[in-house]
Amino acid sequence: MAKTNPGRFFEDYRIGQVIDHAVPRTVGQGERALYHALYPARHALYASDEFARACGLPGSPLDDLAAFHVVFGKSVPDVSLNAVANLGYAEGRWLTPVYPGDTLRASSEVIGLKQNSNGKTGVVYVRTRGRNQHGDAVLEYCRWVMVRKRDMDAAAPEAVVPDLKKVLTPDDLVIPQGLDFSGYDFTLAGEPHRWGDYDVGETIDHVDGVTIEEAEHMMATRLWQNTAKVHFDATFRADGQRLIYGGHIISMARALSFNGLANAQMIVALNAGAHANPCFSGNTVKAWSQVLDKAETAAPGVGAIRLRLVATRGGAPFALKDEDGKYTPDVLLDLDYWALMPR
Amino acid sequence: MAKTNPGRFFEDYRIGQVIDHAVPRTVGQGERALYHALYPARHALYASDEFARACGLPGSPLDDLAAFHVVFGKSVPDVSLNAVANLGYAEGRWLTPVYPGDTLRASSEVIGLKQNSNGKTGVVYVRTRGRNQHGDAVLEYCRWVMVRKRDMDAAAPEAVVPDLKKVLTPDDLVIPQGLDFSGYDFTLAGEPHRWGDYDVGETIDHVDGVTIEEAEHMMATRLWQNTAKVHFDATFRADGQRLIYGGHIISMARALSFNGLANAQMIVALNAGAHANPCFSGNTVKAWSQVLDKAETAAPGVGAIRLRLVATRGGAPFALKDEDGKYTPDVLLDLDYWALMPR
Amino acid sequence: MAKTNPGRFFEDYRIGQVIDHAVPRTVGQGERALYHALYPARHALYASDEFARACGLPGSPLDDLAAFHVVFGKSVPDVSLNAVANLGYAEGRWLTPVYPGDTLRASSEVIGLKQNSNGKTGVVYVRTRGRNQHGDAVLEYCRWVMVRKRDMDAAAPEAVVPDLKKVLTPDDLVIPQGLDFSGYDFTLAGEPHRWGDYDVGETIDHVDGVTIEEAEHMMATRLWQNTAKVHFDATFRADGQRLIYGGHIISMARALSFNGLANAQMIVALNAGAHANPCFSGNTVKAWSQVLDKAETAAPGVGAIRLRLVATRGGAPFALKDEDGKYTPDVLLDLDYWALMPR
Repeated sequence: MAKTNPGRFFEDYRIGQVIDHAVPRTVGQGERALYHALYPARHALYASDEFARACGLPGSPLDDLAAFHVVFGKSVPDVSLNAVANLGYAEGRWLTPVYPGDTLRASSEVIGLKQNSNGKTGVVYVRTRGRNQHGDAVLEYCRWVMVRKRDMDAAAPEAVVPDLKKVLTPDDLVIPQGLDFSGYDFTLAGEPHRWGDYDVGETIDHVDGVTIEEAEHMMATRLWQNTAKVHFDATFRADGQRLIYGGHIISMARALSFNGLANAQMIVALNAGAHANPCFSGNTVKAWSQVLDKAETAAPGVGAIRLRLVATRGGAPFALKDEDGKYTPDVLLDLDYWALMPR
Repeated sequence: MAKTNPGRFFEDYRIGQVIDHAVPRTVGQGERALYHALYPARHALYASDEFARACGLPGSPLDDLAAFHVVFGKSVPDVSLNAVANLGYAEGRWLTPVYPGDTLRASSEVIGLKQNSNGKTGVVYVRTRGRNQHGDAVLEYCRWVMVRKRDMDAAAPEAVVPDLKKVLTPDDLVIPQGLDFSGYDFTLAGEPHRWGDYDVGETIDHVDGVTIEEAEHMMATRLWQNTAKVHFDATFRADGQRLIYGGHIISMARALSFNGLANAQMIVALNAGAHANPCFSGNTVKAWSQVLDKAETAAPGVGAIRLRLVATRGGAPFALKDEDGKYTPDVLLDLDYWALMPR
Repeated sequence: MAKTNPGRFFEDYRIGQVIDHAVPRTVGQGERALYHALYPARHALYASDEFARACGLPGSPLDDLAAFHVVFGKSVPDVSLNAVANLGYAEGRWLTPVYPGDTLRASSEVIGLKQNSNGKTGVVYVRTRGRNQHGDAVLEYCRWVMVRKRDMDAAAPEAVVPDLKKVLTPDDLVIPQGLDFSGYDFTLAGEPHRWGDYDVGETIDHVDGVTIEEAEHMMATRLWQNTAKVHFDATFRADGQRLIYGGHIISMARALSFNGLANAQMIVALNAGAHANPCFSGNTVKAWSQVLDKAETAAPGVGAIRLRLVATRGGAPFALKDEDGKYTPDVLLDLDYWALMPR
């Protein structure tokens, strides 16, 4: 029994500690096909090698969120196996596209620790980085999770709360090398709306809905080698329900947002994210977006757009929080990200 | 809200109009593996590169129906998003096999329009063509759908009903370049029955059945980037059921027909097809076939066989229509196609 | 109707008969990705080309059990379509790793026949071999199944019961060419425990559980082109349940065993196996292992470990049989295999 991984507890983390996560993973056309089977993903840059080459890339990369899920999944056994809650994300950046045949690995640095006043749990802040086989960083993000203590009497560490940016600025964004939207084909991409057509403050109801099945979210979560028991084992929670991996909702909402944001091709930054309410099999996921900001970039024809992406399980479109500032019960996800779009 | 795709309505179509469909798609080994996971597909030409090479092809192509579904899926947002019913198919031909790494795109030409007498809907006839990255046509077919009008008062267009062939003749069939069944290995293919062993009029009960799950038909339909809401959203129909994409039944029936038609390797033409009754999760799909015609071809060792393929959810084998000529309630699909077989 | 495969009956087998199974199959990155989606598989050698190369292999092979399932699936239409029960396995050996792009085919030799005393069924023993496109044997195993007779009055053949090894010895094991664990990276592999850390007799509770869904086991079983009706057709059994392919439980248990046996990288032999009780959708599968034996090998840094792998649907860990020597009702699988591990 001593040989199985019990996961780390709050007192196992130290500021500055770097944890190399296990199980490097080669990704390829199989993962790409499964991504298209699991989500209604239609962004042309991730569906067609020809379209991607016409945009200056060597071929169609793995979906940005698939790369995120692989890196995130690697971190689970070391960071969130004993997590009570996944509290937030910040300073997420995509740094190099991931192509079929690449092998990804990940590591996390502990950048913050704060014991909770109840003495039973604490918040661990990590900066997780994924790298490819050349050692290039492919993406990085901070997240903070509430983790149980093993020993309730263990002394609290000195509280360190990292000073994370609320929002990445346009200067922080890394544009993939060679990206060029000056010859962008709007017909093939599926919508005529370019960067200039979106106004800050504008909201878009993405209309379509997808009812979620157990087999699908479990296949997705396993594909990313995420090992959290709560997603797979119906006997784990008292209510007999399997909690759906929050990343499944992120990918579902992003894919649904094609309808209205077909040209928000590449995700380059994750400013913030909250899994507002748990999602279960049988829920029908819908999505809406709001334009939060816009910026120009140095790449030819490429604009940046900052979007709020909200996933719901119904309810009125554009409803988010109640009078007390709490998310309404139908809101599943509130994500703040930067994407690249043809100008 | 104006940015999402509301789909085209009846009055948006014009005779001669050519619609280039969005989202080109690179297909590969991932799509092939998923096809084998979703359907009990066993035709050797589509399972083994070695077998395909022994038949004169450069390698194992993507299943003909997978190529069809990709092209069909691309047409949905432009042709059938507001469709009330998918009424029929004609003049379908496979023109070039699709190989892993190919990128498919599609366009449709409007070839017929006829407003219904109720003034609320009309029938739109299109000829849809899929092309690969070299510009070669990979397949084409006509289909007609009943589409809602946006404005009930809009004037009816001049009625144009295209004169489509009821059945393609052997001369219409395009045999893939290099195809040679003269050294065909019947043992590896799984059955000894050759073209000469089938008689016109003969019926074959394919025996096996597959009970359909929500997760499977949704994964399949998403894989083809088919966006019709009714397949994914349990809140869309009043009865809370998700209607299964008709193409899922076509592929299921074709795969089941291996048992008795293992050597009907390649589909080269679709003469006609009717989705006789809707299919829902929990239905157990079975299939039977009838030999409708046979023809020789110029390719070495290759014969053509015209088959009726009927999918049912039970009921007596070979039952098709009642006394009034209506499909019996258990019939899901009635398909008429040409396949190539070793002589 | 005469054209469909009724399967072989007991009197159709002869000692020494070699049956070449149909449908050669090219496997690749799609099958690898699906394996990761269907099972919580995390062994690094099968996840990362880089890790595999660091262990002396040319790249990451297809999971050993996926290779097994493909070969097993090919044998089903000829060996077990009319089987009442899959009784046992022996002398299973993996001989050459399977790499993406390989095409597998299989044949079985009848090595034993024994009619049962009831006169209605008999036991057929076969040795099944899978080969790749170069003709190299990739794996072989014996299994015996109880098969129905077609004609109850058919005379019983002379009983031949092969003398199969209860356990393969270390000398029987074939170590993949080039395998070298002398520079093995335990951090990337996920656990620090090496061959020397395991004691004969030691038991390991693998802790995690996975609740099984219909869509998943059917997708897996179809992926291996296993055609046994009982896995797919809810109308086939009187109780309306689909029996889950025993191999699905083998793969699930093996994947779960990562937690505690992350370094038992490669399966090289299958000594014995029993599907103790049937598994159905909704069951939550857990697993435990016991170390049965250990041996050194000639390959650098490579040790062999013989493991009992038990899958259950709950119950007390390490429970196996009751006082009468019968498996307890919660035991699904009792497998005895050899794996390779860094020393």
